[in-house]
Amino acid sequence: MSTRGKRNKIQICECGESISEEVWKWVIDDSQKALEKEPAMQGLLRDVCLSRSCLAEAIVARLARKLSRRDMSREDLEPVIREALNANPCIIECMARDLVAIADRDPACHSPLEPLLFFKGFHAISTYRIAHWLWQQKRYMLALQFQSVSSEVFGVDIHPAAQIGSGILLDHATGFVVGETAIIRNNVSILHEVTLGGTGKEDGARHPIVESGVLIGAGAKILGRVTIGECAKIAACSVVLNDVAPHTTVAGVPATVVGSAAFTPALDMNQELCP
Amino acid sequence: MSTRGKRNKIQICECGESISEEVWKWVIDDSQKALEKEPAMQGLLRDVCLSRSCLAEAIVARLARKLSRRDMSREDLEPVIREALNANPCIIECMARDLVAIADRDPACHSPLEPLLFFKGFHAISTYRIAHWLWQQKRYMLALQFQSVSSEVFGVDIHPAAQIGSGILLDHATGFVVGETAIIRNNVSILHEVTLGGTGKEDGARHPIVESGVLIGAGAKILGRVTIGECAKIAACSVVLNDVAPHTTVAGVPATVVGSAAFTPALDMNQELCP
Amino acid sequence: MSTRGKRNKIQICECGESISEEVWKWVIDDSQKALEKEPAMQGLLRDVCLSRSCLAEAIVARLARKLSRRDMSREDLEPVIREALNANPCIIECMARDLVAIADRDPACHSPLEPLLFFKGFHAISTYRIAHWLWQQKRYMLALQFQSVSSEVFGVDIHPAAQIGSGILLDHATGFVVGETAIIRNNVSILHEVTLGGTGKEDGARHPIVESGVLIGAGAKILGRVTIGECAKIAACSVVLNDVAPHTTVAGVPATVVGSAAFTPALDMNQELCP
Amino acid sequence: MSTRGKRNKIQICECGESISEEVWKWVIDDSQKALEKEPAMQGLLRDVCLSRSCLAEAIVARLARKLSRRDMSREDLEPVIREALNANPCIIECMARDLVAIADRDPACHSPLEPLLFFKGFHAISTYRIAHWLWQQKRYMLALQFQSVSSEVFGVDIHPAAQIGSGILLDHATGFVVGETAIIRNNVSILHEVTLGGTGKEDGARHPIVESGVLIGAGAKILGRVTIGECAKIAACSVVLNDVAPHTTVAGVPATVVGSAAFTPALDMNQELCP
Amino acid sequence: MSTRGKRNKIQICECGESISEEVWKWVIDDSQKALEKEPAMQGLLRDVCLSRSCLAEAIVARLARKLSRRDMSREDLEPVIREALNANPCIIECMARDLVAIADRDPACHSPLEPLLFFKGFHAISTYRIAHWLWQQKRYMLALQFQSVSSEVFGVDIHPAAQIGSGILLDHATGFVVGETAIIRNNVSILHEVTLGGTGKEDGARHPIVESGVLIGAGAKILGRVTIGECAKIAACSVVLNDVAPHTTVAGVPATVVGSAAFTPALDMNQELCP
Amino acid sequence: MSTRGKRNKIQICECGESISEEVWKWVIDDSQKALEKEPAMQGLLRDVCLSRSCLAEAIVARLARKLSRRDMSREDLEPVIREALNANPCIIECMARDLVAIADRDPACHSPLEPLLFFKGFHAISTYRIAHWLWQQKRYMLALQFQSVSSEVFGVDIHPAAQIGSGILLDHATGFVVGETAIIRNNVSILHEVTLGGTGKEDGARHPIVESGVLIGAGAKILGRVTIGECAKIAACSVVLNDVAPHTTVAGVPATVVGSAAFTPALDMNQELCP
Repeated sequence: MSTRGKRNKIQICECGESISEEVWKWVIDDSQKALEKEPAMQGLLRDVCLSRSCLAEAIVARLARKLSRRDMSREDLEPVIREALNANPCIIECMARDLVAIADRDPACHSPLEPLLFFKGFHAISTYRIAHWLWQQKRYMLALQFQSVSSEVFGVDIHPAAQIGSGILLDHATGFVVGETAIIRNNVSILHEVTLGGTGKEDGARHPIVESGVLIGAGAKILGRVTIGECAKIAACSVVLNDVAPHTTVAGVPATVVGSAAFTPALDMNQELCP
Repeated sequence: MSTRGKRNKIQICECGESISEEVWKWVIDDSQKALEKEPAMQGLLRDVCLSRSCLAEAIVARLARKLSRRDMSREDLEPVIREALNANPCIIECMARDLVAIADRDPACHSPLEPLLFFKGFHAISTYRIAHWLWQQKRYMLALQFQSVSSEVFGVDIHPAAQIGSGILLDHATGFVVGETAIIRNNVSILHEVTLGGTGKEDGARHPIVESGVLIGAGAKILGRVTIGECAKIAACSVVLNDVAPHTTVAGVPATVVGSAAFTPALDMNQELCP
Repeated sequence: MSTRGKRNKIQICECGESISEEVWKWVIDDSQKALEKEPAMQGLLRDVCLSRSCLAEAIVARLARKLSRRDMSREDLEPVIREALNANPCIIECMARDLVAIADRDPACHSPLEPLLFFKGFHAISTYRIAHWLWQQKRYMLALQFQSVSSEVFGVDIHPAAQIGSGILLDHATGFVVGETAIIRNNVSILHEVTLGGTGKEDGARHPIVESGVLIGAGAKILGRVTIGECAKIAACSVVLNDVAPHTTVAGVPATVVGSAAFTPALDMNQELCP
Repeated sequence: MSTRGKRNKIQICECGESISEEVWKWVIDDSQKALEKEPAMQGLLRDVCLSRSCLAEAIVARLARKLSRRDMSREDLEPVIREALNANPCIIECMARDLVAIADRDPACHSPLEPLLFFKGFHAISTYRIAHWLWQQKRYMLALQFQSVSSEVFGVDIHPAAQIGSGILLDHATGFVVGETAIIRNNVSILHEVTLGGTGKEDGARHPIVESGVLIGAGAKILGRVTIGECAKIAACSVVLNDVAPHTTVAGVPATVVGSAAFTPALDMNQELCP
Repeated sequence: MSTRGKRNKIQICECGESISEEVWKWVIDDSQKALEKEPAMQGLLRDVCLSRSCLAEAIVARLARKLSRRDMSREDLEPVIREALNANPCIIECMARDLVAIADRDPACHSPLEPLLFFKGFHAISTYRIAHWLWQQKRYMLALQFQSVSSEVFGVDIHPAAQIGSGILLDHATGFVVGETAIIRNNVSILHEVTLGGTGKEDGARHPIVESGVLIGAGAKILGRVTIGECAKIAACSVVLNDVAPHTTVAGVPATVVGSAAFTPALDMNQELCP
Repeated sequence: MSTRGKRNKIQICECGESISEEVWKWVIDDSQKALEKEPAMQGLLRDVCLSRSCLAEAIVARLARKLSRRDMSREDLEPVIREALNANPCIIECMARDLVAIADRDPACHSPLEPLLFFKGFHAISTYRIAHWLWQQKRYMLALQFQSVSSEVFGVDIHPAAQIGSGILLDHATGFVVGETAIIRNNVSILHEVTLGGTGKEDGARHPIVESGVLIGAGAKILGRVTIGECAKIAACSVVLNDVAPHTTVAGVPATVVGSAAFTPALDMNQELCP
């Protein structure tokens, strides 16, 4: 395994300007190494990374390749994604922070190149970011189409009106469901089969708020307009129907408090009930 | 959001004849509005709606576009779907009732055009309806192929021999599994990751019966030949191994009774334990 | 249903040599019968079975058809899969044992032809077997690409470094997640939405070990370096954070012992808590 | 060869109404026979003929299958072709007369089913008919795209502004070029590599007029605003730069009169210089 | 250019058995060299050559890749081509002789690998060989479909009933047309835009016979049941309406004798009128 | 037709720098007008023009869309084309001059947008320019693959070693064949089915030289190392086996002098024998 040992993670200087440029250098560097080791990957590496000039162009190519279906071809997808990334430069910075978060928190991941190419959690959140921009432009139908394609391709169903911060790790991703009025702050880690769902038929705010630093275990269902406090931990398969205080761990069906939580569960990724 | 406010839902006169014609007018009406607002959608809107003469032809186009894979091309799929819809006119009426149910119960949905184009729950149940017709014709292999493609495309695995009524809302849909001898009556609402599973290796009746008006929360597993009584509610992530009485709410692993249920949980979509 | 009655299962003589040849005869035999009953299936039957000379060539065709996407075309996939099967003949024998296990344990399955053509659980495990061989050859990037495509196509996310034995039934399959250091022995039956996950950020052995004969119910999450003893049974939706003794049944969130288990739960497929 | 013997050609009653209905019965009849003889053709036969209700719908399917490219998918093509055929019912009648002409004049053709499915001359003229209708609606760009796709798929380049009658046999078709102001009357037979070209850079009428009953041999080039008189014959590889009188045969580079012509060369298909 | 210098052509021992095995060794040898020089070609080289075990399997892959269209997918094509090559081993030997002929006679060609991968003349003749076998099996419709696809993909239209020998060089190929009763013997070289056409509407023998050793220049049209004698030469753009004596050169419209011909014009490829 | 009247052609200042920038403004201007007139074209217009930043990126998209086949996907093609255009900026200037030449000389063309989107003559010459650059880099196999794909897609077969200047109008294009050692200077106009062919089997210089200002009519074959002098005119269907003096017109099989030629036949496009 030593050949796959982690390189020193980049120190992200928050005061500095563009994380996406820093990430892009890392991606290109690792793409060239990968090309030498595995010539069979050259098609993907050249199309998505080595023939591109910046992270945004790489994202355009990567998402359009993945989402291409009979409903929307790569030809249809690329102009829309490019338009969104050009119109709002924050989007690419959020994607860059997601890549850094994944490389930092996932022990099976050794470079942002891996999620950029292969992790459907990253692809699904990035697709949501495009759909969310379309929704903000009141292009509702096209936003719904991106949501629909994401649900088909990744098994991830995020309503384009939901609000999601940066530094998100969505691990494995299959079955992730997020409702229309849900809010997720920065630096949150979420395992697969998690639901941030609504209740009832009213159309006001009816989905959860997840504060920063939270870790949500696989299979957890959080339902209704509840707030998961900062740095709380939701154990796997919990059903959460009430607010969760910051820095606490909840578990069970329905979920009850079982302990306090580590400084930042989202960064530790510790799934145990007693941290 | 006011631009996406709901129009008055059509009053479905049960004594009247064809709901599909009523739904079709609504779909065409909203397609034309959508075309004006979002020219980038014109390809999909024209192919599936505006160039078609009835709901059945729109369904043929929509399902064939979605299911088209290397295993079955759009060219292979359309004649089979058309044949089923022509042979049994009840199928299109069931699909029309599903569309009305979704527009009625899902607060994020404003027109049957949305599930027709985008909701994989509707697409998956519709695919099952075709597969079920094939199974009834004893075309077992082709029916299994439709099941297999549905499982790949939507993550929804419904055995073609199962029996499912009309007015079904399958919300988000990913991970829905229904076994060979399961029965679902009319007007049922089911969230994602629900299993109506079997137990053991006998091949008689071994999967659940779900009566009318039931609401099943996300992640619930109902296993064995148990009956979920009329208008019962199964809370999220419950594991149900025994019969559930009508108008009761059950929760937990294994599930126990936690309260009564609203008049018709399937219509209220209230996920709370105490209605 | 009698037309779909089971034929006598083949007696697999463990001392004999190649199960794959035995299975292949069965597959060809049933392919010819299927062709007569359903001419509309001839394209698939001829490409995958009737024009092939052995099970390995059929697997090459079947996997390449299923996995073919914009990222890897059928043309890219076939040479890699063929190379793996040629290099390590054990792989095809494992696949043959999986086919026999499915036909034996799944009451809705009547021939190995059905999982070969249609069951994504079989397709996903087979894809893992190719990815695992690539990982052993230190072709990490290509192995990760197979994992990524499997997660997209089947909703099944198995790290290529994991170790999985033969005679595996992965039923329905959607949402199955297996971490980097997990180990699954022979003759295990696993339902959908099961997770064999890690905990924390260390990169040593951090995922479960599942011994032979185990049955894992739908939605169960097993987290951390715990051992599930031989012939244990994990009930649906259980969250397992500690070792489970052989021949015991556990259930709940978190899981506790609720009884002993049948001789070999994986073969009985009995999902009840008290066997 | 007797199994491929010609059936009695239908007597087309010119005073009667719709030739397309007559042709459609013939096509369906022969499709069913073909399906029995060659099950491997069932995909094409069902999609284009047996699942359709009239010749127009069959043409929509046939052309969209053939022209489908990355530039225009089948999904993009079908609504346009359907729109043209609905708007101007003469188009489908012209296509029906073309089919009858081919079955009548080509000794290697035994049924209108063959050109409908396989003859690119028929496909190319039919594509022109759609492009011409688009041109008449002043949808110039889309008309040019149909011309461009026809040139790519069939090697046939007909300007959409050209005027072409009915009962046209375009045999083999590769390399046929027709300029913007060319006119072709009814019942003309044209072999491959024929050019009806312009001369100079003026943009008025500058391409040939071909009167009824004319036969143009392979490789002939007719250049400038010349008129080919009724029932004239142009020998293979001739270069025609001047008017040709009715009922004469011309040959050579440049072409000179070498004899008179049969009653109707287009119907005889006699390529010899002395009829 | 020296890096592209010709290797010594293999001495084909006519008394020996299989030319296809000899050619296959040459192809594999040059594939490995090509792979080293041009990694970007690895996809094609591996799929068509390096992962195959014999020339026949390489031909199956190469033709199916090229002919794959919406009408017949690669999946539909491979079983048919494989069936033909298995049923009649002479076909692969004819293809091998064609490859040797091209490498021998075309000065721009340095290895049989080049026509195998890239020369549409070779692909078109090989497609005809499959269609001809289908015609012999009385599978007329499928044979016509191969002819139709060849005409679309290559611009080469050879009736499947025509008879063509081995050692054929069809150079550039676009526009080649061969009628139903034409006969071409062995070791003939034919440039592009050549027609072996019929005349009239009778359906007996009505197309040319081309004897061995003949060279036919670009654009030549040979019409009617005429015989082109052994080792004759037809100059470019000639129109031949009468028999041509052996070892003579004809030219013009209509063609007249302009000289004698070299020993074997097909091998010299000398296009001049006076050899 | 007035709505399609020509705008004033741009005055190309030869002393100025980049024609491609001038052409690009024209293309974008006309794309926006086209988008307003024909919304159905928006997919193509946005992908190829409106979402691009310069003519080179538009060419990358346009060629990759057109050439995309099973052998080389759009994903494979784009990095190679982009690499060539980046490495040698003269290529895009040649393409820009071709576009201006077409808009100037073809009376049916009203904007460089039309050949950029639709004219296969322009697409084929542009594909040759990429293949020629690959050949210069000694990437022979990949160059041959581009030639092969061009021959399949456009019916245009230009050897990548040939040398072709700028300002080329290749009208209709089907059947154009150019040999390995042919040379074409600047500002030449060539109709379809023209061959610049070799003779014999020697591999030295054996194909024609075409000087500036020449016009070659449809179907003409020029064979051997002959020189077509400046501003000469070759009539349609001529067979040229000897040098042609500057400013002369030749015609016939074989071609003889029939008159002098206009100042610059390539610009006049007058096909008559006596100018």
